[in-house]
Amino acid sequence: MLPRSYESLPHSSIARALEVVGDRWTMLIVREAFWGTRRFDDFQRTLGVARTVLTDRLGRLVEHEVMDRERYLEHPERFEYRLTEKGLDLWPVLMALRVWGDRYHRDGISETEVVHRECGGAVDDRRMCSSCGMALGPLDVHQVARSTNGVS
Amino acid sequence: MLPRSYESLPHSSIARALEVVGDRWTMLIVREAFWGTRRFDDFQRTLGVARTVLTDRLGRLVEHEVMDRERYLEHPERFEYRLTEKGLDLWPVLMALRVWGDRYHRDGISETEVVHRECGGAVDDRRMCSSCGMALGPLDVHQVARSTNGVS
Repeated sequence: MLPRSYESLPHSSIARALEVVGDRWTMLIVREAFWGTRRFDDFQRTLGVARTVLTDRLGRLVEHEVMDRERYLEHPERFEYRLTEKGLDLWPVLMALRVWGDRYHRDGISETEVVHRECGGAVDDRRMCSSCGMALGPLDVHQVARSTNGVS
Repeated sequence: MLPRSYESLPHSSIARALEVVGDRWTMLIVREAFWGTRRFDDFQRTLGVARTVLTDRLGRLVEHEVMDRERYLEHPERFEYRLTEKGLDLWPVLMALRVWGDRYHRDGISETEVVHRECGGAVDDRRMCSSCGMALGPLDVHQVARSTNGVS
């Protein structure tokens, strides 16, 4: 177990990170963005979140440079939101939450799995390919339906 | 980037995980527990959180079996809170948040670092020992003050 730390709370990296992403809707928006969602109405429909909450959370994500906002329509004015490099670097957090959620809140079974694009190997809990051993990033993987009949 | 998923939101592992730990205070309580905090008053003092909020979050953590509650005093009745195995399995989430917080919210420099107990090697962002290569769990590591003078 970790011993008592030298870091006091306000300066802790974890506390700082949680100031930015320590909110359920924020992390769900980031997850949707990883899956390719870009537009306000698409976030809203997929997440079923109130528009005022979504506006607030997207605004905070842009302010903290986790997402970029780019106009794609002038009349009416419409924007697309994309993960920045800082946003892409949240992938390990999402993968860790996914592994934990799979283990304890779905009886260990997910309908989808994240696999290495190149060789099809499953991503393990350290984000390595369980088939070829490569250390993976978010651009190296995609999500597929899990085979349920035991045939690989 | 991950393509659009087969998983709908309510069944997603990440969404389920966030229902339990997708709250800033909850994750900070879990972090404190990893550092050895056990008692209500200690959580309260270290985090500076309102007692009603702390009562609520600890209650939810016990309800979701992330923490156990054990009485250590009868008059007045007092309890200790400890991470269960399910709670210990949140370590990868905390480490991922720490790496991200270090990278973006402390100019990459943390006052402390997490090192492998046995050999003193730094833990890398996949929770492997950067010195001996061992895959590490929460019981294999401790936290030390980071040397700031470049002497290792």
